[in-house]
Amino acid sequence: MRTIALAAILAALIPTPAVAAEPLPSWNDGPARRAVVAFVEKVTMEGGPGFVPAPDRIAVFDNDGTLWSEQPAYVQVAFTLDRIKAQAEAHPEWRGNPLFRAALEGDLKAILAGTPRDRLELLAGASAGMTPEAFERTVSDWLAKARHPRFGRPYTELAYQPMRELLTYLRAEGFKTYIVSAGGVEFMRPWTERVYGIPPERVIGSAIKVRYEVRDGRPVLVRLPEVEFIDDRAGKPVGIQRAIGRRPIAAFGNSDGDYEMLRWTTAGPGPRLGLIVHHTDAVREWAYDRESPVGRLNKALDDAPKYGWVIADMKDDWKVIYPVQK
Amino acid sequence: MRTIALAAILAALIPTPAVAAEPLPSWNDGPARRAVVAFVEKVTMEGGPGFVPAPDRIAVFDNDGTLWSEQPAYVQVAFTLDRIKAQAEAHPEWRGNPLFRAALEGDLKAILAGTPRDRLELLAGASAGMTPEAFERTVSDWLAKARHPRFGRPYTELAYQPMRELLTYLRAEGFKTYIVSAGGVEFMRPWTERVYGIPPERVIGSAIKVRYEVRDGRPVLVRLPEVEFIDDRAGKPVGIQRAIGRRPIAAFGNSDGDYEMLRWTTAGPGPRLGLIVHHTDAVREWAYDRESPVGRLNKALDDAPKYGWVIADMKDDWKVIYPVQK
Repeated sequence: MRTIALAAILAALIPTPAVAAEPLPSWNDGPARRAVVAFVEKVTMEGGPGFVPAPDRIAVFDNDGTLWSEQPAYVQVAFTLDRIKAQAEAHPEWRGNPLFRAALEGDLKAILAGTPRDRLELLAGASAGMTPEAFERTVSDWLAKARHPRFGRPYTELAYQPMRELLTYLRAEGFKTYIVSAGGVEFMRPWTERVYGIPPERVIGSAIKVRYEVRDGRPVLVRLPEVEFIDDRAGKPVGIQRAIGRRPIAAFGNSDGDYEMLRWTTAGPGPRLGLIVHHTDAVREWAYDRESPVGRLNKALDDAPKYGWVIADMKDDWKVIYPVQK
Repeated sequence: MRTIALAAILAALIPTPAVAAEPLPSWNDGPARRAVVAFVEKVTMEGGPGFVPAPDRIAVFDNDGTLWSEQPAYVQVAFTLDRIKAQAEAHPEWRGNPLFRAALEGDLKAILAGTPRDRLELLAGASAGMTPEAFERTVSDWLAKARHPRFGRPYTELAYQPMRELLTYLRAEGFKTYIVSAGGVEFMRPWTERVYGIPPERVIGSAIKVRYEVRDGRPVLVRLPEVEFIDDRAGKPVGIQRAIGRRPIAAFGNSDGDYEMLRWTTAGPGPRLGLIVHHTDAVREWAYDRESPVGRLNKALDDAPKYGWVIADMKDDWKVIYPVQK
């Protein structure tokens, strides 16, 4: 009796490792999934030739088109146009500016044909004078009400389930996961922790100038109508260096805007992983690459074999696209 | 027998909490230590009126004069002057620039009378063209050999033991600890993890511009001879917002350069802690405040009572100054 009791107590007390669930359940067992798992196993194998200590396991992710849908237009553009329309009466001077006039007229095609800097200038103008706290509330309120034009769901429900699993998997293996996006950093920070498990301080993005001032005796920061930094193309490695101070060992993108980040990341010593999400699924999401005004993928697709970048084919590699389809 | 064996096994298996050592052993039991401990206990007490969830427990520390000694001159200035002298022959044009000429002549008084921007411009000039990796090696090599003029020890041994204990204590209580310094961010990152337990991505500082380029077919970042950002005074809250995206709940400084950071941090809602290290110990370290060209403390000292900032009196509050004295 006692022996049985002892065995039972011991069984209850000795912590048994949880049976590790297979990682990346929404990924088909194809070359992309296998390349990711092989890379992670290599860098985490202590004593192995490719071992990377945990502090250096830094993985960077583009956001639009890599972690969530960017079609038919970047989510931040939809937000910006709504903000500009809401404030049009207070800003008659916007009518004289072609960029702002296009926004007021809802000319999405013109806005998407412009540069990331153009789009951030619209956002800077539409949020000038606000504190970061007030801007954050505006973003959160808008996201709670806005619906995606095709799917009729909140935008934050249109994060890619396979990429969310990838983020979780990497963090469980000791990686620090960062967003590195051409989008405005303060537009992302209010919701990235909830949607991706990425806290505000691990979001790197384009930035609008802020100034410290004392208002009615209280110190505040105030957003200015000026762009400070564009975190796109050659700006991405610069933004990473500025914020992290170390070269990542893994980079994930979907467009030529991620080319330099992929190049710089995968040119470092030791094991490296570069991965491109290729939008090939017109039925469940969208199919676009070389000719798309949003998320154009041309040079990076050409050079992927040369630099060993893995292509994740959305149609073939992903069992589901969005969490709701799980 | 069996019962005894069972009890012994159970005792060995059931994890007992380690007897918590008293925090801050190098601090005397005075008002500064008590204020710090009371603040930490308040924000970590779940269900209590001052509870702050762990992700929001952000603490920011000035570096020079707050975490390590800044007398007789900022360590980075000693490094910069050595670098400028070593490269003088390759830069005859420096002779025509009053700032660089002062550096070449070792005119410390002139350098210290200048602005943080002046000093960062010297560093930018002295490291232009280097990659961040090469610059990091130069900093590490220099720190390994350089000795403090008064104490004859490596500078990294002149971090304050009581502040190192404070960093450890806060992290053990769920805080994220950041450096927010007017010093160059890349000068600090190579050694802050080892000396303070603060990894590179949690160091915020003044910044020199870098550019992405492809050299001999390899993508690299290159330092430019241009200042990008001065993380001093009103720049500190701006730098914090840019890097962290949240207002800290605790700030630690020692000079008027930390005034705005202290103001902004302690003006937020809920429990807040602002603390000033007051250099009052000419025997063991230095005694200076209102008139010092390095680490001048005047306005912040005047306003400390008004805003409830705690004064840590180095002479009275600290049992030891440096780790070697433990």
